Amino acid sequence: MSGKNDIYKPRPISGFLEWLPEVRLVEQRWLDQIRAAFEQYGFCSIETPSVEEIDVLAAKGGDADKEIYGLRRLAAEPGEDDTASGGGRLALHYDLTVPMARYVAQHFGDLVFPFKRYQMQRCWRGERPQEGRLREFYQCDIDVIDMDEVSLHFDAEIPAMTLDVLSRLDVGPVRLHINNRKILQGFYQGLGIEDVVNAIRIADKLDKIGHDGVIQGLTEELGLAPSVASKCVELASIKTADTGFADEVRAFGIDNELLEAGLEELTFVMLELAHLEKGTVVADMSIARGFDYYTGTVYEGKLVDYPDFPTVCAGGRYDNLVGSYSRQKLPGVGISIGFSRIFSKLVKEGRIEVGAKCPTDVMVACLPGSSRTDLGVTSRKLRERGFKVEMYHEAKSLKAQMKYASRKGIPYVWFPANAEQENHEVKDMINGEQSVVDIDTWTP
Amino acid sequence: MSGKNDIYKPRPISGFLEWLPEVRLVEQRWLDQIRAAFEQYGFCSIETPSVEEIDVLAAKGGDADKEIYGLRRLAAEPGEDDTASGGGRLALHYDLTVPMARYVAQHFGDLVFPFKRYQMQRCWRGERPQEGRLREFYQCDIDVIDMDEVSLHFDAEIPAMTLDVLSRLDVGPVRLHINNRKILQGFYQGLGIEDVVNAIRIADKLDKIGHDGVIQGLTEELGLAPSVASKCVELASIKTADTGFADEVRAFGIDNELLEAGLEELTFVMLELAHLEKGTVVADMSIARGFDYYTGTVYEGKLVDYPDFPTVCAGGRYDNLVGSYSRQKLPGVGISIGFSRIFSKLVKEGRIEVGAKCPTDVMVACLPGSSRTDLGVTSRKLRERGFKVEMYHEAKSLKAQMKYASRKGIPYVWFPANAEQENHEVKDMINGEQSVVDIDTWTP
Repeated sequence: MSGKNDIYKPRPISGFLEWLPEVRLVEQRWLDQIRAAFEQYGFCSIETPSVEEIDVLAAKGGDADKEIYGLRRLAAEPGEDDTASGGGRLALHYDLTVPMARYVAQHFGDLVFPFKRYQMQRCWRGERPQEGRLREFYQCDIDVIDMDEVSLHFDAEIPAMTLDVLSRLDVGPVRLHINNRKILQGFYQGLGIEDVVNAIRIADKLDKIGHDGVIQGLTEELGLAPSVASKCVELASIKTADTGFADEVRAFGIDNELLEAGLEELTFVMLELAHLEKGTVVADMSIARGFDYYTGTVYEGKLVDYPDFPTVCAGGRYDNLVGSYSRQKLPGVGISIGFSRIFSKLVKEGRIEVGAKCPTDVMVACLPGSSRTDLGVTSRKLRERGFKVEMYHEAKSLKAQMKYASRKGIPYVWFPANAEQENHEVKDMINGEQSVVDIDTWTP
Repeated sequence: MSGKNDIYKPRPISGFLEWLPEVRLVEQRWLDQIRAAFEQYGFCSIETPSVEEIDVLAAKGGDADKEIYGLRRLAAEPGEDDTASGGGRLALHYDLTVPMARYVAQHFGDLVFPFKRYQMQRCWRGERPQEGRLREFYQCDIDVIDMDEVSLHFDAEIPAMTLDVLSRLDVGPVRLHINNRKILQGFYQGLGIEDVVNAIRIADKLDKIGHDGVIQGLTEELGLAPSVASKCVELASIKTADTGFADEVRAFGIDNELLEAGLEELTFVMLELAHLEKGTVVADMSIARGFDYYTGTVYEGKLVDYPDFPTVCAGGRYDNLVGSYSRQKLPGVGISIGFSRIFSKLVKEGRIEVGAKCPTDVMVACLPGSSRTDLGVTSRKLRERGFKVEMYHEAKSLKAQMKYASRKGIPYVWFPANAEQENHEVKDMINGEQSVVDIDTWTP
C-alpha cells in the first residue's frame, strides 16, 4: 500500500501481456479476421462469464485444477463465509471447452442442433510462465455439438476451417497432425495392454523423453514386455500425408474392432481433407492429446517455422463432455486456437509489422484563421463520409501539429477552408504533397 | 465435487451475464458500432490485463477495494506463499480508468501525447447484484491524457463523442448532466465550509435522501448553520440547458476564485456543445461524482426512458490520476459507458429485437444426388464471393434440413447443381420462393 504522496512504480506482471497501441491495432485486425472467417462458416458467437463455479470446473476431472485461479473478495475477513459474493465458490475458467459444455447443458432447450459456436475469450492458468505459456491468454475456439451423434464430416470441416483461418494471418505455414484415439486404444488393447490410459500417457511423451525413455517407462512403470513396448513406439513413428498410414498400421497384424473403427474414421477424415495443399495435414500416430475426454479424432497444429515451439491449435472429438452436466447425450468435436501464444511468439520474433499508432485517416489542423465552427463542421462532414478524423484542438505551431500527426502515423492532414483561405487543402504525409481539394469528393 | 458418473446441474451465477446466440449477435453488433464510432474520432484501442497488482489498485485510494476480487491459486495450501503464481498479489480490475492510468505511466516513453485511447473490456466487482449492478460487466471507456495540460476542448469533445456513440444504438434518448467540481468546491469554500469533501459527499445524496435529508446531514454531521446548508441544496437545484446556470450561481453573490474558474470552464464546455440537440446536455449543479480524483468537469448520463435507472455513463476531468504512478504531470478527461448495464436493461425491458441464431446467409443443402465434391465446391465458391455459408452434412430428409435452416433463421437454402439437376437453385426462406440461379452472379 502506498501513502497519498507516494508513487507506486508499476511493473509488467509476468505471464500477463499488454501491447502498445500500434501492436494492439494488429492484434485487433487479426482477431477480426479470425472472427470473420468463423462466421463465413456460419458459426455463431457465444461468450460465457470469465468465471465458473468451482464444482463445474472440477466436474471435468483431470489435473487442470492445480492451475486454476479462484476468486476471493479482498475485504473478506479470514474465516468469513464469502460465498455470497462468489468468493471461494467461483474460479476463472482455464479453457473455453468446459464453459461451452456447461453452456450447452444449461441452455439445451433454447439451442438448435447441430450447435456450431465460436468463442474468443481470455482464459487464465496460474502456471509458471515460460515461452508459449501465459497466465492470461486469448483462445479462439470452434466446436460443433449435436444430439446423440455428430456427423463425422465435422471432424474434417473443423480442421479445414482452422487451417483456412490461420492461412489468412501472417503466421507462416501451419501443419496439422491428426490421429484417432480409437487407433491408439484399439492397438494397445490388441497388444494385451491392460492400463491403456497410462500407456498412452507415457507414449505421448515421445517428443520430450525420446524413444528410450518411452520404452523404459512402459516396461518399468507398466511392466510391459520390451517387444510390446517397442511396438507402441513403432506405432507412434507412423506419419503419412495421405491415407497410407492405415496399411502401415494394419501391417502389425493386430486384430481389434476399435482399432479398425479408428483407421476407417481417420481414413475418411484424410480423404475429406484431400483438397488441401499436400503436407498441410498429416496423419500422425504419435498424437494422443492429454485430456482424457477425447474419444475419436484428435488434432495438434504446429507452426512449421518454429518446430520447437509448442502446439498452437489443438482439439478433438469428445462423446461425453457435455454429459458431465446433462443426461442428454451431446457429443462434439472442436479445435482451440492458441491466439495469444501465436501472436506473442510472432511479436517476439519481430514478424509483426506495425504501422500507425492510431486508426485516424485525417487530422484536421487548427490554423490561426480557423474558427471552432470551421474545424467542427469540417470534421463532422469528413466523419459522415466515413473517414476516421481527429481534430487538433490547440492553435499550436504548425510544426508541432505536423510532428504529432507524423509521430502517430496519421496519413493525411487537412487544412480547412476559412476566412483567410478559400479552399480546403490536404497534405499527404507520406509524399509531402499538399493540394487543394473538395470536401465532398476527396478520397485518399 | 462430483464423482465420475454424477451430473453437476449448472445454474446461472448471480451478477454474471451470458446470452443466447441470438442476443449475443445483437450485443456484438452494438460493441462493433461503439468501436467504429470511437475510431471515427481517431481514438486508439488498448487492452490491459484483467488483473492489476493489488498495490496498483490500492494506490488510488477510495473505498473501491471492498468490492475487489483478488486471485488465489486453488491448489495453494493454506498459509503457502502463493505470490509467485500471482495468488495473493493480483486482483481483477474494477474499472478501466485505473488500469489506463497505470498503462500510461508504465509506457510513457512509447506513447504520443495527447494520448487518446478507447478501451472495451470486462470489469469485476464483488457487489451484491441488483438492477443495473453486475459483478462482471463490459465498460467502454474513452480518455484523453496529455502532458502538463489537457485542452479544455476535450471536455466538450468527450461528451459529444459519447452522445454520438449512444445515438447510434437503440437506447432511446440520453441526457447528459454536466457540472464542474470547481463550482462546488469554490461555492462551498466561499460559504466558509471547512470540510468541503464531506459536504459534497452529503449533498451528492440529494437524489437518494432528499432535500431534508441533505439539510439534516449538513447541519448535524458537519455542524453547518441551517442557512448555509440551505444554500448548498439551492445550488444543487440549478439545472439549465444553456449557459444560464452561471448567472443563477452568481446571484448568490459568493466571491471565490475557484467558483469563478469553474463557471467559466463550464460555460465554455456548454457553448462548445451548443450544436447538439437542445436538452441533450444539461448543466446540472447537483452532479458531484463520488470519486475524489475528479478536479474539473464531471459528467453523468441517464436513459431518458428510465429515469429511475442508475447512471449509464459517467466521467470527468482529473489532474492527478496518473500521478499516482509517475512524477510526470499527466492530466486527463474521460467518460466510461456502462455497456452491460445498458444492454441488460434493454434486454430485460424487451427492447432488443433479436433475429437469427447464427450469422449464416446461405445453407447448402445435402441432396441425395449431390456428391461431397458438389457440396464442398459450392460452399467454397459462395464463401469466396463473401457470403457466410454453412453446409448441411448429412443426407437427412429435406424436411429436416429445412426445419434446421428455419429454426436458425438462415435466410437462403441452396440446392447445388449435381448429376440429377443441371442448375443451382435457391430457396428464399422468407417468401418461400425457389428459383434457378447462377452461382457466379447470384445476390440475395
